[in-house]
Amino acid sequence: MSPRLTEALTNVSQAVNAELDRLLPVSDAPDSRVHEAMRYATLDGGKRLRPFLVMQSASLFNVAESAAIRVACAIEMIHCYSLVHDDLPCMDDDDLRRGRPTCHKAFDESTALLAGDALLTKAFEVLANPATHSDPVVRCELVADLAHASGGQGMVGGQMIDLQAHSLDLDVAGITRLQQLKTGRLFSFSCESGALLGKAHGELRLALRNYAHDLGLAFQIADDILDVEGDVAEVGKRLNKDADAGKATFVSLLGLERAKSQADMLAEQACRHLDPFGDKADLMRDVARFVVRRRS
Amino acid sequence: MSPRLTEALTNVSQAVNAELDRLLPVSDAPDSRVHEAMRYATLDGGKRLRPFLVMQSASLFNVAESAAIRVACAIEMIHCYSLVHDDLPCMDDDDLRRGRPTCHKAFDESTALLAGDALLTKAFEVLANPATHSDPVVRCELVADLAHASGGQGMVGGQMIDLQAHSLDLDVAGITRLQQLKTGRLFSFSCESGALLGKAHGELRLALRNYAHDLGLAFQIADDILDVEGDVAEVGKRLNKDADAGKATFVSLLGLERAKSQADMLAEQACRHLDPFGDKADLMRDVARFVVRRRS
Repeated sequence: MSPRLTEALTNVSQAVNAELDRLLPVSDAPDSRVHEAMRYATLDGGKRLRPFLVMQSASLFNVAESAAIRVACAIEMIHCYSLVHDDLPCMDDDDLRRGRPTCHKAFDESTALLAGDALLTKAFEVLANPATHSDPVVRCELVADLAHASGGQGMVGGQMIDLQAHSLDLDVAGITRLQQLKTGRLFSFSCESGALLGKAHGELRLALRNYAHDLGLAFQIADDILDVEGDVAEVGKRLNKDADAGKATFVSLLGLERAKSQADMLAEQACRHLDPFGDKADLMRDVARFVVRRRS
Repeated sequence: MSPRLTEALTNVSQAVNAELDRLLPVSDAPDSRVHEAMRYATLDGGKRLRPFLVMQSASLFNVAESAAIRVACAIEMIHCYSLVHDDLPCMDDDDLRRGRPTCHKAFDESTALLAGDALLTKAFEVLANPATHSDPVVRCELVADLAHASGGQGMVGGQMIDLQAHSLDLDVAGITRLQQLKTGRLFSFSCESGALLGKAHGELRLALRNYAHDLGLAFQIADDILDVEGDVAEVGKRLNKDADAGKATFVSLLGLERAKSQADMLAEQACRHLDPFGDKADLMRDVARFVVRRRS
């Protein structure tokens, strides 16, 4: 990772942790357990890639950081809720996430279920609040677009397909569609949210959408490669899951070498979509090159 | 139930079913299963009490039915998602709901989990859409208020307390707080949403809040009474759950007779809060008297 990317990611991580800490309630009443679980599932974890993309795309349109950080946190709440629910025994049944016990292992299943529900709900409360943007039309667009990206016709729809993947006999086109729903839509929303906050439409927003499309796919192919080649201590979660479950992946369909060259090609293509932004988008280019080279 | 209430409830039920049918997507792609489960969990079921309260409170402020019905559907999506997740094995582990198999019995656990997530998400997408209200400030208030009412500091917080209720040794005040979170907040939002849509603040909104408070509590006491006295074929769900789980209820704390008189008293008090609306609120008074007399 380039030193400037390392520094920028660290800065965003710290800002996101501080803002999540402010946004997520604490309680000393009997409902405190769900708030503790929400904090456990969100604070101090992960690469904060989606928040980073929000902050970067917002900076392209000179959006105030105080607004962008709230959108970044809302997206991270959605991402973290999806991980909490995905890790439950009735889903992937995982014990390890980001190198520590999953939420239902640290608490229990019912608390994890409720914490996920509450995080999902909180994301929309944050976006609808006037502190996120002075223009209520923009706030409504944020709510509607994030809901669309993460709901039954977006991320959740992708999770539904993923659950049936072992019996669907998916080809590369099928896997691509699955991943575009399951992870791509939230990447797209993250990248486009800067344009939305900056009220930019047309070509610039489209450029970000195209960047997100290629970035998301490159990210997923790299994930499949990590699933085969990764080190569990570095990655911080169980590996070989898809192969063990008999699911097709980009690696199983393309082979390791073609998967790697495909990911590299997508990362370069993603960078080229950022041409209209000149060197203001260099950190977003760094991200694209990083996601295909990461070890975790 | 008064004949005019029966007719009005039937009309709202039909309108809500038709609108939910329009709002909930169908799909012939591999994600169709989650959409089928969402429809199974919401269409053709329940008394539609919350939607009814939305439509009635909206009519007090001459709000267009086409706007109010969308808010009614959003609240019903939240209510239905909470039932789907509440019925899961890690929560109440129920097989029967509204007289038919619960969502995870008709589908499976993971599909039910995802269907609940997607319904919760869809509610906010519906509210943020311009079709719900021409004023984006109102739409943002709807999103923020519904999120607050149903999230970790509202309904989900109440569910969290409920899960621990067997070990909390709750008294009447504790049970009242639990129920105000778990069911009261969504009742309050339903009753206040008409004022919100009609941009009415101050005394009239407060009157609706007070009505909702007493109505919600009366509803819950009646639920506890039904849990003891009800007929499983009429009620359509498992009974004696709380007693079996060793949880305190209004009936276990007050005794059956005092619980009944308390519910009646609250219903009458709820009606009096509606005085400022004159006879325009008669159907809402009928509802208050109905909820403490219902057999299901």
